[in-house]
Parts: sequence; structure tokens; C-alpha cells
Amino acid sequence: MSWILTAADLPDLARGATLLGTGGGGDPYIGSKLVERVLGEGSITILDPDELADDLFVIPTAQMGAPTVMVEKIPAGTEPTQALRALEAHLGRMADATMPIECGGINSMIPLVVAAETGLPVVDADGMGRAFPELSMETFAVYGVHGSPLALAGERGETVLIDTGDDDRQMEWLARAVTIRLGGVGHIAEYAMTGADVRRTAVPRTISMALALGRAIREAREQHRSPFAAIADVLSTTLYPHVRELCTGKVVDVERRTTEGFAKGRAVIAPLDGDGTFEIRFQNENLTAHRDGALVAIVPDLICVVDHETAEPITTEGLRYGQRVRVLGISTPEMMRTPAALEAFGPAAFGLDEAFLPVERPAS
Amino acid sequence: MSWILTAADLPDLARGATLLGTGGGGDPYIGSKLVERVLGEGSITILDPDELADDLFVIPTAQMGAPTVMVEKIPAGTEPTQALRALEAHLGRMADATMPIECGGINSMIPLVVAAETGLPVVDADGMGRAFPELSMETFAVYGVHGSPLALAGERGETVLIDTGDDDRQMEWLARAVTIRLGGVGHIAEYAMTGADVRRTAVPRTISMALALGRAIREAREQHRSPFAAIADVLSTTLYPHVRELCTGKVVDVERRTTEGFAKGRAVIAPLDGDGTFEIRFQNENLTAHRDGALVAIVPDLICVVDHETAEPITTEGLRYGQRVRVLGISTPEMMRTPAALEAFGPAAFGLDEAFLPVERPAS
Repeated sequence: MSWILTAADLPDLARGATLLGTGGGGDPYIGSKLVERVLGEGSITILDPDELADDLFVIPTAQMGAPTVMVEKIPAGTEPTQALRALEAHLGRMADATMPIECGGINSMIPLVVAAETGLPVVDADGMGRAFPELSMETFAVYGVHGSPLALAGERGETVLIDTGDDDRQMEWLARAVTIRLGGVGHIAEYAMTGADVRRTAVPRTISMALALGRAIREAREQHRSPFAAIADVLSTTLYPHVRELCTGKVVDVERRTTEGFAKGRAVIAPLDGDGTFEIRFQNENLTAHRDGALVAIVPDLICVVDHETAEPITTEGLRYGQRVRVLGISTPEMMRTPAALEAFGPAAFGLDEAFLPVERPAS
Repeated sequence: MSWILTAADLPDLARGATLLGTGGGGDPYIGSKLVERVLGEGSITILDPDELADDLFVIPTAQMGAPTVMVEKIPAGTEPTQALRALEAHLGRMADATMPIECGGINSMIPLVVAAETGLPVVDADGMGRAFPELSMETFAVYGVHGSPLALAGERGETVLIDTGDDDRQMEWLARAVTIRLGGVGHIAEYAMTGADVRRTAVPRTISMALALGRAIREAREQHRSPFAAIADVLSTTLYPHVRELCTGKVVDVERRTTEGFAKGRAVIAPLDGDGTFEIRFQNENLTAHRDGALVAIVPDLICVVDHETAEPITTEGLRYGQRVRVLGISTPEMMRTPAALEAFGPAAFGLDEAFLPVERPAS
């Protein structure tokens, strides 16, 4: 069902999108402030994917860059619409709606900025079902909609159009180089598609899910219920039904560096229930979780670090020595676990040697 | 006067373009082979800039990248036309002619490849009057025609369109990043302009001049006359009237490295007429010449290394220990020495502290 989003929804949506960001994706709080500023008392129509006309023309919009840079470099807010307009001009067709390419992190908010500026509705779906570090890691691409042509807008009015045919990795490779030279952040429009394409290739209702998660966590706190039970309740009705507590403990080490446009590193957690160690490795997003050297969760399943009491999600750049945290493993939809999907954004796509292991069936 | 170029002219043109490449610009021999292959028995019309209709639409074409890479990575030959067509589609206007952006090095040949493929004529003018390492170092830009939008084509069919408004340095910065990620070489179409713009902003008749220089050197050798006197004779009738022998000697040291898409380094020559040393510094092209630490020639004047007997021009990548060479200093046209021109491609544009010193009036 289509629904209406207002500024009052943004704090909950930001919380849910941070959880789905699995440590990365950029800070949705900054994005929510951009939406708030442009939207004011207005509202945005969120379209259910099942209700889209087959020939509705959808142009997704997003930000690309290292989240550590995004924290320092707040965008003006007009760039993603500039990217949309550049792609429309190039294609000779106006968009009927925009859509996230990524439901986790700041990219949950960028299409809302565009919607608030242009009056376009936003499709309740995305191409990552979480956050990923690269533009080619999209269910869109896995199921046959390619990213090119991509339009990229810079803060000084630059526009760059990149067309690499059906080679989405080459598109990512070239767009990343431009983004780095724009200072680490660029705004993009890509993966233009029809309503029929959305139904075939997108992860459905991920904006709704992010909002429901953020709201459930808040309401549980207000009502002195367990926010962890609330998260599990929400997920049980979605394509992400399994959630598992992987560790509760104290952050004892964090290493991160920004290199080649990515924030890479690892966090070490001392579990409260034993002497072992728990380690998370990340490239913008959390990629793997190991307990005493044994794999317990791996991309594309979600590895989410949250406050041990409030369940407030903690991003990679928010990790600090001494924090008490819980680490949740959440199952991704089956369409994100097919061989073709795992080739695009499974362990090997990140240079990891380990095979995918569904979080609901951990190694014994 | 407009004239007709055939494949028989290419060896002389390549020799002259290598001289005007001042050590860089990429090897025009490779380019001449591409032209030969496409042109066969055909011919290309070379348009005199004074005879262009004011509203003739000209799209210059070129290759960008490090000359050391170009030697190893011979282009397919179709990329510059692909770039031209991408820019035409973006602008919604077909070109009436193409033109070099650079008369020295391989970029003397790229517009001829396009002409041979498309049947377009080539304007006898360019925007550098020699070779320079960056796309923003153009008399076009100095006199008010900007490079954007630029179209860039890669060997796997990629196209990238870059629009940075009137900021030609930002255009260079972004296009260079894409070129590096394409493997070090890209083909471009940029600085679209009218016939009236050509007359106002281009260095005129530089294809003619390159051809005349190459032919004069060859004919002098064949007739056992001095090729150095022949060079001086040709230049005396052009906008480059002054030529001066800066040094005759033996190459005793060459350092070069490819970094950030450029070939940078220096060559040291032991003069035959004394104990001193003569040093040339280059960034793709030769930038400065010093004799015993004193400046004798500096960019944008031409510093050309040639064989000490045959006057065959030697590029930076052709420099070898033990070569006997002469170094010639050649004056650039006055339109390349104005304060605005020196700001774009004078010493400071290359990070040099020294002021411009016309080669015909060396420091005493």
C-alpha cells in the first residue's frame, strides 16, 4: 500500500536506516536534516512497488563516497536533484518517481531530498536491501537492470555522465575516481528503470521496514519493553525474518582508515560471557563477524552493532573504545542469497576467502 | 589557403609534430600509422582558419594520457570518433570540421584519424601551438572558449561526459582521473567552437608548419644541406621566428617516472664545448633548460632535443645515455606569451618559481 511520509517520521526512519546500514552507508541523521529543511510542513508520497504502473519511469538517486568524509562534508542538498535532471536530459525522458539504490544509511534519505525538492513520489524499495560500498552491488544489476548511464553531480555544479554499457563494475570504477577528485563525495542518478523492472529486480518495502524498525525501537524504550524483542517482532513479518544475537560485550579496539574512497578497518569486542574475542571487519559496512576465530556471520547478511541497552545502532565511525554493545546478525532476503547475488555482493566480491554462511544456520 | 593532405605527407608531418612536441605529446609515428590505415589512398581537406565561415561548427579531438603509456598501448583508432559522436549527441549538433587541440606529438594525428573515418575536414590550427600536459593549457581557454562539455571514450566502448562550466582546470582534474582508470589513455572531444572562435582563440596554421618543418629537415638531409639552417628558414616565415641553439653535447643522465598520469623527470647533457652541465626538466614536455644552473629557456617557449647531425627530434621517452644531441630553443607566438596565456601555461602553471624569459633574449 502506498503511504505518506512527513518530517515527523524522519527520526525513526533515520534510526532504522542506520541499523540497516550495518555500520556504514553514511549517517542518515545528516540526510534527515536535509530532508527536513526542504520538506518543511510538506509530505512525500511513498509508492508501494506492487502498485506501480508497468511503464512508470523511475530514476533512483543517491550519494556516493566514504562515510567518514560525509560526516565532515555536509552536502548542499541540491546536488542529487541536479544529478537526476542531468540524467533526464541525457535520456530525453522525465522521471515519474525516484527510489533509493540503498536502504541503509544516508541513501535512505537522498531520494527524499529529491522528492521534497521536485514533488516526485518515492518507490518503497531499493537495490541493496541494506548498505554496500560499491555501485555495482545491486539486486537491480543482478536481475538485469544496469546502472549506466549514470549522472554524477558535484557541489560546484559539475556534472559527469558515465556510460559503460552493461559493465557495472567499470561504471563504479570510473564514478569512484571522479568522486574522489570531487573531494570524496558525489551525488548520483543511475539504474533508470520501469515499474515492471522495479518489481523484478528491487528489494521491496525497505523504506517501510526501516521506518517500522526505528519506530519499534523508540516505542519499546518509551514503554520500558525490550527493544531487541521489538526488532525481532518487526523483522518476523518481513523478508528478513531471522535475527540472532551474536555477541554482547565491550569494544576494546577499533582500527579504521580511509583509503581509495572507502573506510576500511576492524573492531574487536570483548564478550561479557567469556574470555574469547569477537571481531568485526568492515569496508564502509560490516563484512564479517568472527567469535574466537570462527565465522558467525558474513556479508550479505546484516551485521549490526547496537547499544547493549537501548539498541541504538552504532556506525563504524561511531565506534569507540569502552562502548557496551550487542551485535545482531540479521538474515537477508533469499533474492540476495542466490548464486548470482552472491557473485555481485557476497564474500568473494569483497576479496574474502570464506563462503557465505546463512546467519540462521551458523557453523556448529 | 586550404589544402589537401595525403598519406605521403604523414612521415614529414610526424617528424615536424615530434619537434613541436618538445619532448612530449606522445609519439606521432604511432598516430601516423593509424591515419595511414584508415586513410589508404584517400585524402583529407585541411581548412585555412582565415577561410572558415563564422558559424562553422568545429569539434576538436585528441588523445589524453601519459606518453610513456601510449607507446605500450596502441589505440584501436575508433575511440576519438566515438568521443566526437558522443559530444555531438550531447550538444545536439553535428560537427562541420575537427581540429587539433595540440599540434605537437600524437595529437597532431588524432584529428586526421577522425577525418579519415568521417570525411570531415580538419582546421589548420590548434590550441597549444606545441604540446602541453594538461587539457586546460589551451589558447582556446585563455581567449574565452572553454573545454566543457568534454566527451571521453575508452577502448571498451565506455563514454564519459564531463561538464565543469568555465572551470577548465576542474575539467582536466576529473578527465585525468577517468583516463588513469581507463588504463592511462583516453580519447576526447572538447572545446567545441565556431569558425569565428577559431580565428579569435587558436594558434593558426600549425599543421602546415609541422609539415613544412618535417619536410625541410628531410630535404636538407637528402641534399646534404644543414637541417638546422632549414629549420631556421621555415620558422622565419611563421609566428615562431626565433630559433637558438642552446647546447650541443652528450646525454649523460636521464631520470623519468610515470606518476599521476604524467611522465616526469630530467635529462642531463654534457656540453661538447666546455666542462659545464646542461639540464632539461620535463613533465611530459620539456619545461626548462639550464646551463650551469642558469636558465636559458623556459615554458611556453619550445625546448627541443634533436640528433646533433640529422636534426631528428628525440622525445623524452627516446632519450638514452650516450646520445649526441643538440638542444634548440624556439620562440612561441606572442598570443602565447601574454599575462593571461602565461597564467594558463607559463612557468607558474607548472609550479616553477622562475619567471618567463623569452628565448630570444636570454639572461646575460
